[in-house]
Amino acid sequence: MPHYATLEITPLMAESPITARAQDFAAWYQDVVLQGDMAEPAEIVKGCMVIKPNGYAVWEVLQRELDTRFKASNHQNVYFPLLIPQSFLRKEAEHVEGFAPELAVVTIAGGKELEEPYVIRPTSETIVGHFFAKWIHSWRDLPMLLNQWANVVRWELRTRMFLRTTEFLWQEGHTAHSTHEEALEEVLRILDLYAEVAEDIMAMPVIKGVKTRAEKFAGAERSYSIEAMMQNGLALQAGTSHDLGQNFGKAFDVQFQSKEGQLEYVWQTSWGVSTRLIGGLIMTHSDDKGLVLPPKLAPIRTVLVPIYRKDEERAQVLEAAHRIAKDVGAKVDDRDGQSPGAKFFHWERRGVPTVLELGPRDLASGKIVLKRRDTGVKEPVDQTALPGRLAATLTDIQSSLFTRAKERMKANTVLANSIEEVESILRDATAEKGGGQFVMAHIKDDPNCDARLKEFKATVRNIPLVDEYDGPGKCIVTGETVPQRAVIAKAY
Amino acid sequence: MPHYATLEITPLMAESPITARAQDFAAWYQDVVLQGDMAEPAEIVKGCMVIKPNGYAVWEVLQRELDTRFKASNHQNVYFPLLIPQSFLRKEAEHVEGFAPELAVVTIAGGKELEEPYVIRPTSETIVGHFFAKWIHSWRDLPMLLNQWANVVRWELRTRMFLRTTEFLWQEGHTAHSTHEEALEEVLRILDLYAEVAEDIMAMPVIKGVKTRAEKFAGAERSYSIEAMMQNGLALQAGTSHDLGQNFGKAFDVQFQSKEGQLEYVWQTSWGVSTRLIGGLIMTHSDDKGLVLPPKLAPIRTVLVPIYRKDEERAQVLEAAHRIAKDVGAKVDDRDGQSPGAKFFHWERRGVPTVLELGPRDLASGKIVLKRRDTGVKEPVDQTALPGRLAATLTDIQSSLFTRAKERMKANTVLANSIEEVESILRDATAEKGGGQFVMAHIKDDPNCDARLKEFKATVRNIPLVDEYDGPGKCIVTGETVPQRAVIAKAY
Repeated sequence: MPHYATLEITPLMAESPITARAQDFAAWYQDVVLQGDMAEPAEIVKGCMVIKPNGYAVWEVLQRELDTRFKASNHQNVYFPLLIPQSFLRKEAEHVEGFAPELAVVTIAGGKELEEPYVIRPTSETIVGHFFAKWIHSWRDLPMLLNQWANVVRWELRTRMFLRTTEFLWQEGHTAHSTHEEALEEVLRILDLYAEVAEDIMAMPVIKGVKTRAEKFAGAERSYSIEAMMQNGLALQAGTSHDLGQNFGKAFDVQFQSKEGQLEYVWQTSWGVSTRLIGGLIMTHSDDKGLVLPPKLAPIRTVLVPIYRKDEERAQVLEAAHRIAKDVGAKVDDRDGQSPGAKFFHWERRGVPTVLELGPRDLASGKIVLKRRDTGVKEPVDQTALPGRLAATLTDIQSSLFTRAKERMKANTVLANSIEEVESILRDATAEKGGGQFVMAHIKDDPNCDARLKEFKATVRNIPLVDEYDGPGKCIVTGETVPQRAVIAKAY
Repeated sequence: MPHYATLEITPLMAESPITARAQDFAAWYQDVVLQGDMAEPAEIVKGCMVIKPNGYAVWEVLQRELDTRFKASNHQNVYFPLLIPQSFLRKEAEHVEGFAPELAVVTIAGGKELEEPYVIRPTSETIVGHFFAKWIHSWRDLPMLLNQWANVVRWELRTRMFLRTTEFLWQEGHTAHSTHEEALEEVLRILDLYAEVAEDIMAMPVIKGVKTRAEKFAGAERSYSIEAMMQNGLALQAGTSHDLGQNFGKAFDVQFQSKEGQLEYVWQTSWGVSTRLIGGLIMTHSDDKGLVLPPKLAPIRTVLVPIYRKDEERAQVLEAAHRIAKDVGAKVDDRDGQSPGAKFFHWERRGVPTVLELGPRDLASGKIVLKRRDTGVKEPVDQTALPGRLAATLTDIQSSLFTRAKERMKANTVLANSIEEVESILRDATAEKGGGQFVMAHIKDDPNCDARLKEFKATVRNIPLVDEYDGPGKCIVTGETVPQRAVIAKAY
């Protein structure tokens, strides 16, 4: 599918200044989201937002990138109901304990009190479990590889646009397998897929790893995550893939006859990424001028702003602008009644990776000015050389953004060998002031150890699948030997 | 985007017989939906369904066709919250009256009783109105052309998969304009767009027209619809486009400063099509063997079934099958342990427009057998001529399906000049037995006249935008002269 976003045909919005990151990171984030036409709080619906055109267009690109990969790995899209009988949640003990406090409950429908209330899905494992039991009978029915694109509701107390909203959009994969080994392969295949989209498309480096037992999904055997580092050094869990073991299989009685004729419970997985990714994207690349989008995710990669003062210049410049733009797949911002400066400002805040300027002097000299969003550098280019130069620039922006983020993560990751050291490093790392770090330390996968970190609002983000450090060492809480260091950080 | 649906890698489902249309149309429909892997009732959630892989894949093609056209006409996608404060519904008197009986209400969230309950959106005019008031200030902000892809809930008493479910998927467009003339242009532009997708992509002929005042959307000034005829002669409202006048503008105080400096209310439109279209598709083309999909809407256009008995034939046939399939964009059904007959049956029920058969004899003769789903006709084709022949066949299937449906509509449309005549024609046209008709009659746009038709369960479907009949005539109820005939029918 081509990049298809249209230019708004409405005029420039009244634009307000953007708070500097150094001054107030949270305020900066909110400004970038608002001024980038990404979203706006829906204050009349608790913790919800309206996803605005630029934000939704980015989500569509992300959906396409993910969906293509799901289909290429034999997953099929389906759609399960929004409402789930309340009793379903209770069938898996950990699951209901985890989600009960966050549920939105429908008690009245069609003018009548319901005998059994419905909850709005916070996630769909339970209703999927019910249907798996209907659909799966034999090993021949396995694996069953499903995905749905849906909205979910979790009643959160503290919300922040994209990062945590009471309603959010996501995809949730649900699969069933005949062996644990095969299910685990699926869990890790999807984790790789998520990491690939995060790194190659969003230019957002991530660490793949396994969550501690204390931090896993309610109802899973083990949860795996990709964790990213925001510009303020805080961690963001950007995607999760769960090994559900036979927990939901047993709760919903999903049994199949094996090749050997035995009746066995299926092994399940579930996995999801959401509009939260967009929050991560913004906090990874954007700057004090507003949104910065990596080219592979940008709904509009290039805008051409024509410059003319006199009416006799207008026709000539516009004719050339449309000809050149067509050639390189750029959008022409030919709105009248707006100064070129206002237009540059407009597209800058919306994160468009490259902007072209074309005026009467450029026409005479056969040049065009190419400005890149990430560095702000302007470069005159021969019009004949533009297609190649523009493509190379977009490629360079994509890789530069990734490299910069990767280097930032490296520079802000430190090793620590005692709980005091971890605490001292993370003590001042508040969400609002920046200065967060990833601290690599040995810590046992034991809820008591997680609890100790909670005292200074840190968490084990994950235990990396690949140990890039020094192997085994003594747990900073218990002193026991553990196989490798884990990522400890404050997080959104 | 390419056609991307994957073959299920799960084996053939146990398949049951399909009831003949002539025997029981409603049972036939349910069988086709189930056996075509389109959907299945979610009996544990009142009136809901699970949309299964083949059904969702068709919905994705429909979404793409619609979305491309929305974007080409400058609409932007956004996303508004699922939940709407209950008080919002009451701001437009007709709107709340129309939707109140169908609402699902969230009264508890996050473990607490809510002070003000939320309703799950039955449609989004009210919440959109709230945000339009925030976003629109000047004529420069207009037109505002938005669309969202979303789920909605309407608590229906009598449901039927795809045609009427308590939750359904749809798109809803919401636009605001500075003049009524411009809003009306938008309403009709979208009606044309819907008709184009229905006729050119779904091969489903429709009649564009205006609904009577009694049948309009609750809160609209006028509603326009496309109406299709199902194989049993019943009508299906397949899409609607509403001229909302200034009703929601006044209810939500959406005012703008005109070019002349006056404060005026905006003129709004809203329009939607839903998963109901898939029900219409099925009831237009499918037959007693199962689903029939027009090629432009088919997730898989061609399946190649390799035929071999001995192991030494297998490798050779499969090699040729994959080579030929790649050449023409077909999927190879190379599942072992299934007979070719079972595979033909499988794809037939799933509505795949063309199936290729390739066996050892075909390899020897350089032929391949091409079978079309609509007519069931088999034709041996030279392998070298296949690409052209297949493309021509798919084009022919697409146009044949449309022509057949168009002729059926024509053959089942009659004129009537008295209410007794209308009643006698429609009296026996029950949904289950077929025999429905479109009756063209002169009838005044007056709720009393609509009420008279209700006595025998008929309705005015719409008053066509183009009168193909005899112009003015006397109303069959009041005797007053009205400008043209309207479509009267029983409907889903």
